[in-house]
Amino acid sequence: MSGEPRPGRAPAPIVLLTDFGLADWYVAAMKGVLLGLAPGAPLVDLTHAIPPGDARRAAFVLAQAWPWFPAETVFVAVVDPGVGGARRALAARAAARSFVGPDNGVLTPALEQPGAEAVAIDPARLAADPPSATFHGRDLFAPAAARLAVGATLASLGAAVADAVRLAPERPFARGGALVAHVVYVDRFGDCVTDVTRADLAAYLAGRAAAGLRVRAGRAAIAGLARTYADAPEGAALALLGSGGRLEIAVRGGHAGARLGLGPGDPVELSWAEG
Amino acid sequence: MSGEPRPGRAPAPIVLLTDFGLADWYVAAMKGVLLGLAPGAPLVDLTHAIPPGDARRAAFVLAQAWPWFPAETVFVAVVDPGVGGARRALAARAAARSFVGPDNGVLTPALEQPGAEAVAIDPARLAADPPSATFHGRDLFAPAAARLAVGATLASLGAAVADAVRLAPERPFARGGALVAHVVYVDRFGDCVTDVTRADLAAYLAGRAAAGLRVRAGRAAIAGLARTYADAPEGAALALLGSGGRLEIAVRGGHAGARLGLGPGDPVELSWAEG
Amino acid sequence: MSGEPRPGRAPAPIVLLTDFGLADWYVAAMKGVLLGLAPGAPLVDLTHAIPPGDARRAAFVLAQAWPWFPAETVFVAVVDPGVGGARRALAARAAARSFVGPDNGVLTPALEQPGAEAVAIDPARLAADPPSATFHGRDLFAPAAARLAVGATLASLGAAVADAVRLAPERPFARGGALVAHVVYVDRFGDCVTDVTRADLAAYLAGRAAAGLRVRAGRAAIAGLARTYADAPEGAALALLGSGGRLEIAVRGGHAGARLGLGPGDPVELSWAEG
Repeated sequence: MSGEPRPGRAPAPIVLLTDFGLADWYVAAMKGVLLGLAPGAPLVDLTHAIPPGDARRAAFVLAQAWPWFPAETVFVAVVDPGVGGARRALAARAAARSFVGPDNGVLTPALEQPGAEAVAIDPARLAADPPSATFHGRDLFAPAAARLAVGATLASLGAAVADAVRLAPERPFARGGALVAHVVYVDRFGDCVTDVTRADLAAYLAGRAAAGLRVRAGRAAIAGLARTYADAPEGAALALLGSGGRLEIAVRGGHAGARLGLGPGDPVELSWAEG
Repeated sequence: MSGEPRPGRAPAPIVLLTDFGLADWYVAAMKGVLLGLAPGAPLVDLTHAIPPGDARRAAFVLAQAWPWFPAETVFVAVVDPGVGGARRALAARAAARSFVGPDNGVLTPALEQPGAEAVAIDPARLAADPPSATFHGRDLFAPAAARLAVGATLASLGAAVADAVRLAPERPFARGGALVAHVVYVDRFGDCVTDVTRADLAAYLAGRAAAGLRVRAGRAAIAGLARTYADAPEGAALALLGSGGRLEIAVRGGHAGARLGLGPGDPVELSWAEG
Repeated sequence: MSGEPRPGRAPAPIVLLTDFGLADWYVAAMKGVLLGLAPGAPLVDLTHAIPPGDARRAAFVLAQAWPWFPAETVFVAVVDPGVGGARRALAARAAARSFVGPDNGVLTPALEQPGAEAVAIDPARLAADPPSATFHGRDLFAPAAARLAVGATLASLGAAVADAVRLAPERPFARGGALVAHVVYVDRFGDCVTDVTRADLAAYLAGRAAAGLRVRAGRAAIAGLARTYADAPEGAALALLGSGGRLEIAVRGGHAGARLGLGPGDPVELSWAEG
């Protein structure tokens, strides 16, 4: 009903996702603003290691993380190469959580949820002074996130928008009897997460045994579907449904990306062989 | 009036700034001590990536960050190559916030505030046992910071000192009609922050149009003053007043430090050209 | 007496130690689960920079850090190359603190405490759904840690085990009149921590003056025992009892590991010379 704090309730957790790195003071400046406006809010770093300006990667990381946080959590995603330019600043509400960030696609994982709502943040509603032209994370997104964490409504921050930028996800496609998929993310362990979801895999197999699955990815030709990394011998490549519900290419005890020559965008081809 | 905790008040946030890195257990050991003495205090990492022993860089980072934290925040800055030697341990109060660290200049941003006060921390007032000779962050500065976070006064920690070490900042100087400035910090994006403040720039322009500003920095010759990064074409160098109120040299979508050959200490020359 | 939360008590701090790095979403997903089950629990990162799968290094780091945290702290250590395989998941209680992690030796610092107890976590007691096969940090260890942080007993999580895996520590041994020790850890500053404890050193000296100590380590031959880094001239190697109570080899103002050619496992030989 209003943008005022909810007396007597603890502020919601605020999760930060940026491309600021951890060497400078930028993340801390945002946290200072957050603690000033939402004292006691638990602050969690999603990651600050997004390559500068890579909104697509940030959106992917956000998509993997947000479902694990409790209702009312506020996510503030600042990967913002267009800061100070014409792009809008967004606040969104989806799946009982709140999201704040620039209108460049970084909030796609929220906007694509059923019933998602978004507003364009009006700086005048946040502070008497206009924000700096180069650090909206500190001057615009942190204040908006803090307001949401203490109970402000979306409507208190600005007017609704219906055309927020959404990044089209990479998707596998059929070619003959094969499914052509892609690596979308290589993690710290070298595991290569693909755009094949559990549902995609089930649809492709269509009841056929997973033991017949064949996966070609970089230098690897993999037969069958493993359940966990320990199912393969040391150094062997395997394919499995990872913890995010997507097909992953891994190497037991090694870095699949480096060993198999795989990076984001590279093709992964699924086929099926009798027996 | 006393060094005792304030009953009924939540501990103040404690912000940590060190050269400890994030791979070892040193930051965590400090946080363990802090949580033991100030349970519930919000703990924030400013950065732990200061190059070992670089008190000047730590002081610069502290100067950029502290104003964004709320009153009563306690900053503990441990960049301390002289640990265990003769240097004093300081606690300071400035701008309604508290600061703790070695007396090697790292606390300069606090000490130069109007009305700043400092004391030399007396280890005997903190613990029955003397601190280790090599880890005052854990054994001396963390306990002092925790005490301050729960309401202790400076005076409860030790005797006043009037001659705390202050690092002289780099400052631009006039040469003919030009202003010779310096890069003082290169951030994760490659943006080169200089020693030219907003006031310095206004004094240099003295009412002349900013469009006539000429900036030579490394391989770049820049005309005019941009408002934000998006004002320049991709790959072009620009000069702007950054979010910390200082002149910055940046490259749109690129790393100015690497592209222009600029690092801390390098000269940046400002001049002015009619039209 | 039961696994139920303790009404009216703040959740205990939860300390995370993993090999997940900080670039991906894995640490954040664990924190989301923790905040959902133990709202308000202070979350502290011990480190996430353990090399993938290096349970021995993780155990060493845990041993250095845990004593500095207050009673009731819960440590969750996820360095788990055998995830999804046959290894058990453990929860342990030692020294008035709780510990959670895979049964691969990472919890050795807890298990070796007097009176330590351990149970094998039964996933069925944590959630209706079985955990994923590849991310027990999120699906098994975080829920168990959150339960412990809000007051659950060990017994509520599973059945007692008496044969939990403990890693045998490296230990110095006598050879003639010398003591042959080892580097066990090189920290961010390059300081080389050895397996010589304060007690080991006292036993070796057996009342002889520390000034007679001779230490050979890599390219260094060191005479005597320093008290702190500042006791040696710039660039000189020194030996001292470090903040964790172990003999360390350091170089004043430099990286001893790199300068002396020392890494984990390398020998360090102590001898004693009259005068």
